[in-house]
Amino acid sequence: MFSAAHLYDGTPPAVMTIAGTDSSGGAGVQADLKAFTTLGCYGTSIITAMTAQNTTGVQNVHPSPPEFVRQQLNSVLSDIKIQAIKTGMLFDAGNTLAVATGLKAHFGGPSLPTMPPLVCDPVCVSTSGHTLLQSDAVKVMITDLFPITTLVTPNSQEAELILSQDGQQININSLEDMVSAAKKLRDLGPAAVLLKGGHISITMKDVERACSLNADIELVQDGLLEDNMEILQVAETDPSTWQLAVDVLHQKNGVTTIFVRPRIDSTSTHGTGCTLSAAIACALAKGHNIKDATRLGTTYTHTGIEMAFPVGSGYGPLNHMHSIILRSIPLPTPSIPHPFTRLLIQATSGIWKAYVEHDFVRQLGEGTLPRECFIHFIKQDYHYLKYYGRAYALLGAKSPSFPAIHASAQTMLNVVTEVKTHASFCAQWGVSRKELEITPESPATTAYGAFIMDTGLQGDRSKLVMALAACLLGYGEVGLWLRKEASKPNSWVKWEGNPYLKWMEDYSGEHYQNAVRTGLEAIEMEAVADPPSRARFNEWVRIWGRCTTLEKGFWDMAMGLL
Amino acid sequence: MFSAAHLYDGTPPAVMTIAGTDSSGGAGVQADLKAFTTLGCYGTSIITAMTAQNTTGVQNVHPSPPEFVRQQLNSVLSDIKIQAIKTGMLFDAGNTLAVATGLKAHFGGPSLPTMPPLVCDPVCVSTSGHTLLQSDAVKVMITDLFPITTLVTPNSQEAELILSQDGQQININSLEDMVSAAKKLRDLGPAAVLLKGGHISITMKDVERACSLNADIELVQDGLLEDNMEILQVAETDPSTWQLAVDVLHQKNGVTTIFVRPRIDSTSTHGTGCTLSAAIACALAKGHNIKDATRLGTTYTHTGIEMAFPVGSGYGPLNHMHSIILRSIPLPTPSIPHPFTRLLIQATSGIWKAYVEHDFVRQLGEGTLPRECFIHFIKQDYHYLKYYGRAYALLGAKSPSFPAIHASAQTMLNVVTEVKTHASFCAQWGVSRKELEITPESPATTAYGAFIMDTGLQGDRSKLVMALAACLLGYGEVGLWLRKEASKPNSWVKWEGNPYLKWMEDYSGEHYQNAVRTGLEAIEMEAVADPPSRARFNEWVRIWGRCTTLEKGFWDMAMGLL
Repeated sequence: MFSAAHLYDGTPPAVMTIAGTDSSGGAGVQADLKAFTTLGCYGTSIITAMTAQNTTGVQNVHPSPPEFVRQQLNSVLSDIKIQAIKTGMLFDAGNTLAVATGLKAHFGGPSLPTMPPLVCDPVCVSTSGHTLLQSDAVKVMITDLFPITTLVTPNSQEAELILSQDGQQININSLEDMVSAAKKLRDLGPAAVLLKGGHISITMKDVERACSLNADIELVQDGLLEDNMEILQVAETDPSTWQLAVDVLHQKNGVTTIFVRPRIDSTSTHGTGCTLSAAIACALAKGHNIKDATRLGTTYTHTGIEMAFPVGSGYGPLNHMHSIILRSIPLPTPSIPHPFTRLLIQATSGIWKAYVEHDFVRQLGEGTLPRECFIHFIKQDYHYLKYYGRAYALLGAKSPSFPAIHASAQTMLNVVTEVKTHASFCAQWGVSRKELEITPESPATTAYGAFIMDTGLQGDRSKLVMALAACLLGYGEVGLWLRKEASKPNSWVKWEGNPYLKWMEDYSGEHYQNAVRTGLEAIEMEAVADPPSRARFNEWVRIWGRCTTLEKGFWDMAMGLL
Repeated sequence: MFSAAHLYDGTPPAVMTIAGTDSSGGAGVQADLKAFTTLGCYGTSIITAMTAQNTTGVQNVHPSPPEFVRQQLNSVLSDIKIQAIKTGMLFDAGNTLAVATGLKAHFGGPSLPTMPPLVCDPVCVSTSGHTLLQSDAVKVMITDLFPITTLVTPNSQEAELILSQDGQQININSLEDMVSAAKKLRDLGPAAVLLKGGHISITMKDVERACSLNADIELVQDGLLEDNMEILQVAETDPSTWQLAVDVLHQKNGVTTIFVRPRIDSTSTHGTGCTLSAAIACALAKGHNIKDATRLGTTYTHTGIEMAFPVGSGYGPLNHMHSIILRSIPLPTPSIPHPFTRLLIQATSGIWKAYVEHDFVRQLGEGTLPRECFIHFIKQDYHYLKYYGRAYALLGAKSPSFPAIHASAQTMLNVVTEVKTHASFCAQWGVSRKELEITPESPATTAYGAFIMDTGLQGDRSKLVMALAACLLGYGEVGLWLRKEASKPNSWVKWEGNPYLKWMEDYSGEHYQNAVRTGLEAIEMEAVADPPSRARFNEWVRIWGRCTTLEKGFWDMAMGLL
């Protein structure tokens, strides 16, 4: 699944399980739905029987009437396009027949849609010994279900039971037995058979012997080391002596594939078979062939066993959630198009408010800000703009595409233009270009400017985008806030006649607000194009929060003439 | 959920749903299990009834016998520690009573564990009009279940039905009605009531009036804009005129909270109520209080509606998978401790093999490599080492911690020491230090060295780690491969007496292999500490593949004396 199409690259394929339930959530329909979801598929389910069950065993079974199984099948298949199906516990002959006839009524006949891939996990007996498929149902499964099955996935015990239906005694104790049994099972009608060898002791020597005896056998040792992986040889022991878990796939085309991985010593195996067939169904729904689907399914299941966390006092469930990460930032939606910026503001609401509603801003809005504070501010802003221009140059140097390089260049040009405007604005306040140049840089200016450059040096493009955001968005917020307050009756904001009118008009004006909108989209795009892990998200918030603090410090500096 | 503890920060909490099933997967137990899983919780389920259902309606219902509901409850509660419970469709009086008495038998009494938070979604009628709770069951729910309920979550229709049990007619058509009904529902016993107003038309003016009339009302406008978010005002219309979806939470402490968000025009609302109560249960299981849990649950559900993809021909399900990302790299397990390095090698197997089994390596192993090729190689390697040292300096400059700075400094010192050894090694081959200095740098050397530096400039620490990996790991692989081949009978590798013996001994030796192991762990740690999105993973593979190609080019250069 790790190589498969990514979630939200499109509509998740819909898949279906036809199986029994497990109240404790580790096996059956529950395990299937968890596997479907964590593999990016939309799950539907037809319940053949309910069980009262936990990690110590099956306490009771309550089967569905066959007619109700048919009704569930009709409800789903008449409404939803299903891309793959798996069957698990079918319980009795009536339900098994209901499933087979139900599927045939919807698929494969004249003027009916093609049957989607069907994985049949022939669940017969629970690990704890509870009968999950009545004996007369086995025959129905073979005669009615196998012929429309893409892949049947018995363990050795189930294979023995199925193959002994014609009266002969079959024992599966070795890899040779497995290969031979897989071929016999294939003769019963399914397009392919995956015989699971979890309970049979096999070593690498056995595998090599089987391969040397049969040219039609290919080996997939995903769980062991492949060629040119000497450096990954970390185990102390020679793998040729390891106990292996081996699954044998035999397909209609005559090819036998042996999947080899180390045997894991674990009690978290509840629901392993259910999960494997569900994961294979997902891979088939995504368009993988049977061999690749088997490889993906066995890897998913195996990792789930190894990543299990404790549940219950018996054989606990494997962990279905190992394949997913929880999103740190929600996806943008029509009603919340800027979830990331919103989270940044919410995560730093105190300091953000202290910045955008700073006394400097309030007094500026009132028109009462001391002239010398404003002059100190615009002189330091001149120095800051140099950092700002350089930071966009660094962003350009870190850009992967021409549009990104273009955007950086454009901002650098804008900064240079703004410096000219800024200088003539300063001149109106009696500050010459020369005075701007010779004014010493305040520590607050250096702290802010150098922090942005340092962030840009240390991190990637996205970190620098975060560092540059607090300035762009904060001044935009200040502009809009002042204009909004000014529009209220008897406002504290003095608009006309305010000595700082031009400053307020600039930051609340269309030109600057367009830049804010572009910046907002850029920030959101970082999160959509490369959804951050929790660690990266925290780092982004830290940078944003630091810059917000440094912005507040910049106005503290102006007010204190520091 | 986005602010909640992250998956794999510990064991996921186990939660339980007690509800009916939905074969089409969008509502009921299936929706609950999907919500649990995508919110990082372990889901268990007690089935009260099965339905044959799809997006167009409920076709049939098959209830569980009350005794079987009790058995399922016993199976789960006797084995698994449940951190939160939700109830959905209970169907009839018998099952409602079985649930209430079953829970009381396990929790809350003398010498029994404390009752975990219980969210009761009083599902009564399906959207399509199907009765999901028989009328005599409503009374049982009120008398037996409400007193042990943490939060009951009716919609207005269900609230009307519950409140009219004592004969009086209740109509809920406005926000005032909602607030008043929520208080009356609270009087029936639950610790808190969340009255969902999805079907009632309310504007911001209504909300402001309600807040001004009642000092005990607080407002949560997560779905709208909060203070200091003027820049996020992207809609064209004034939000005060919007149609809102409003939920009213009333708690035992007398506080009423109004949750406000824009009304969404969507037909993907199948399973909304189930999902909301399931998501709230997850948040409660993680330790959030009722208000925060409600905020998280409503946001999750709302986003699910907005992110819905098409399923079925009627009212489709919301999207439960919006909160997750599929992992690009599996987590390390005991049997596969280096999954990321393995993926890198598998993703570039062709070029990796061409690099580590290059003719240069083969001839070197045979001892037949022309002397001038080897000399050309070691002269260029001298230039390459300068890039290598500088690249680790850059890595140091990008390091966030003293251990990381220390590791970079140590590698830089190792490079400087290696240069001395390299120079005396070269001297043995008749190449003086001076000749090393004046040898022009080959384009292949510049390409490789400058690519590493450029990658380091462009990206963050992790990108530079990927760029440095192909050299470290590749030479380790070559050393181990040659040693392994040499150990075979009649090997093509000439070990003793090989003119390049020292080179082979160095790279297969303990000292270098220890460095390989440290490098391997560092690469894996990048993926574990900051699991990459698909885009980042592809970028890492691209860099690794490029460096592998440039390594091969380095040996092409040596063979061609370019």
